[in-house]
Amino acid sequence: MERYLVISSDCHAGLPPEQYRDYLDPQYRETFDAALPIQIEETDKAARKFLVADVNREWRKGRERQLTGAWDHDERIKVLDADGVAGEIIFPDGITEFNMPPFGAGLSLPTENVIPELQWAGARAHNRWLAELCAQAPERRAGIAIAPILWDVDEALKEIRWVKEHGLRGILIPSMWGRLPAYHHPRYEPIWSACEDLGIIIHFHSGAAPMEDYGELVGMMGIYITEVAWWSARPLWFLIWGGVFERHPKLRVAITESTTVWVPELLQLLDFRYAETHFSAKLGDYRSQLKMKPSEYFRRHVFLGASCMPRREVDMRHEIGVENIMWGSDFPHPEGSWPYTREQMVDAFRGVPEPELVAMLGDNAARLYGFDSAKLAPLVARIGPERHLFHA
Amino acid sequence: MERYLVISSDCHAGLPPEQYRDYLDPQYRETFDAALPIQIEETDKAARKFLVADVNREWRKGRERQLTGAWDHDERIKVLDADGVAGEIIFPDGITEFNMPPFGAGLSLPTENVIPELQWAGARAHNRWLAELCAQAPERRAGIAIAPILWDVDEALKEIRWVKEHGLRGILIPSMWGRLPAYHHPRYEPIWSACEDLGIIIHFHSGAAPMEDYGELVGMMGIYITEVAWWSARPLWFLIWGGVFERHPKLRVAITESTTVWVPELLQLLDFRYAETHFSAKLGDYRSQLKMKPSEYFRRHVFLGASCMPRREVDMRHEIGVENIMWGSDFPHPEGSWPYTREQMVDAFRGVPEPELVAMLGDNAARLYGFDSAKLAPLVARIGPERHLFHA
Repeated sequence: MERYLVISSDCHAGLPPEQYRDYLDPQYRETFDAALPIQIEETDKAARKFLVADVNREWRKGRERQLTGAWDHDERIKVLDADGVAGEIIFPDGITEFNMPPFGAGLSLPTENVIPELQWAGARAHNRWLAELCAQAPERRAGIAIAPILWDVDEALKEIRWVKEHGLRGILIPSMWGRLPAYHHPRYEPIWSACEDLGIIIHFHSGAAPMEDYGELVGMMGIYITEVAWWSARPLWFLIWGGVFERHPKLRVAITESTTVWVPELLQLLDFRYAETHFSAKLGDYRSQLKMKPSEYFRRHVFLGASCMPRREVDMRHEIGVENIMWGSDFPHPEGSWPYTREQMVDAFRGVPEPELVAMLGDNAARLYGFDSAKLAPLVARIGPERHLFHA
Repeated sequence: MERYLVISSDCHAGLPPEQYRDYLDPQYRETFDAALPIQIEETDKAARKFLVADVNREWRKGRERQLTGAWDHDERIKVLDADGVAGEIIFPDGITEFNMPPFGAGLSLPTENVIPELQWAGARAHNRWLAELCAQAPERRAGIAIAPILWDVDEALKEIRWVKEHGLRGILIPSMWGRLPAYHHPRYEPIWSACEDLGIIIHFHSGAAPMEDYGELVGMMGIYITEVAWWSARPLWFLIWGGVFERHPKLRVAITESTTVWVPELLQLLDFRYAETHFSAKLGDYRSQLKMKPSEYFRRHVFLGASCMPRREVDMRHEIGVENIMWGSDFPHPEGSWPYTREQMVDAFRGVPEPELVAMLGDNAARLYGFDSAKLAPLVARIGPERHLFHA
């Protein structure tokens, strides 16, 4: 092949807020009508509070039509073709401030100031629409359903079955649980079992953080971007030490847009804690549930949605795990690589040996999410980034 | 010199709980009498919950007399002499489960299930006793007062002045703030100013973590030890981005027993976020307060209490910062190096060039806390670890 299969492990899609109405269960539409103006105002206020409103507006200037690809099938196809991206994993929150699902069912999945029943209703509205969007190009799109699983396990199980039946490939679950039980709690066991049995991939995506700690103070943005990746990676050690991967050998988890630079140090720390005797002895026997080293669970269970993976992390790929890395574009977010994906990708991956490049740009994601590479081959031959670019 | 000056940046001392009574302001003694049995039971329950009670008991067997050095001047001198440690920085919680100050005024300084007035009273009782202990060997002991500064700034200022007047060298402040304002909040400005003016060093010491997330579930200890160091380092980026070091160029902070392995990556991340334009632009101008790079504030303001620093971190010393590292023994905690300090130290530091060794074992701490090395020289000549051990 003269061109590479590229699958973006991190793309976003969402409807303009008013259009979610038709996808809601009818009994929630009245509440939706009342809540919509408040939601729009709150989202706008948040963008202004975090000083991003102006910058985003500037970045979007002249790209208005292409950004409708956040929800429009035809435009999305054009944009991804031009960007060289054949397949994509689709999360919510298309154009962040304009495409959030109703009732707090966006990327962050807060547990405060939301009503569980409504958050589920908003999630389901989005999931229904997403299933339609994916069905318009099923060979190219792996949709990730929103699943606020913390509230009620039976609701979660119902949705996981729906997700499977409607061709979506994974669920996005909250990376923060507020005052609800964390993910080493046995109450979530049926959820892990269902995802394992049905091949539904669990996702944590960066975004949520304890905003109440930051306030509206000088420094809040620096603090947020310093620790935001940690907050979405954190569930990992609850799952590992809690023995979830021990009990569910086929369960798979992706941590998306959370950088990958922390992986080598974290694995060292986990394995060290697992192996040492003196310190761990003081702290009791927490190892009884784990037959393998933490890093071995990581290698088997955890995939990294490496959005706009920078050169420095590419250089660390062997420590991070070449088989665990899945490149991503983050379209249509301003911090993503679109519309300069080829350039960004070539800068980061130039000179990387062919099999590793192939794995990280597309093959790892193809295998995890079940893309049919053969079906995508003609498309790749037309739009994929050219091999020689990476080996110049 | 044929022997090295060793200052432990991390030692602990505390009274048997009933002995704190005499150091309390009289109006709290009745409450103390009622609370004491509850405190003892709760502490014991926590040790059993975390499965450490048996292990600790085992470790302490045959060391009962030496462990009274947690509060007894004469015994402490003998123990530290035998360990080769000339100077020490003293935190609360001597023998963890037996020497906690009253009313939740221990290392962790919780903000829930405590009464602020009582927590302050417990802290002051400990601080009074600690000032006495330090006065018995002022050239060897730098005491760190307990200061639950979150509740009330005026109380904090009163105590900081008391600390200065009574020869203590620093304050231990909470590394978690619960629902109270975090350290980038302007309300704490008078505290930073007072510490800066009086040369009082601010301390964060590992211990506190969101235990409510862990519950009493399988995996809880693994999760705790995976993230506990992060929780005590976290205030650092609130101080940096909040501009505290920009406004208080003489303020000094020590982060103790929180490992040092995270430093290089954190500094890279902070400087990257500070320097980049694209991503930071989306997220707004949080840089306006900072004239230097975050890593430059770190170098100037932050010291690391590197308890039982392992070889691997010693090998990373140039990235971490040779001038910022202060070795520590963690006496009398079971995870510390006592009574094998020489062996542990030699394993970790063998072959390190003389000036770097001298800096990390004692000189950095001497300078930060104002120890008089000349006064300590005769003691060092008698007890210090011998030079040839490190260069064999």
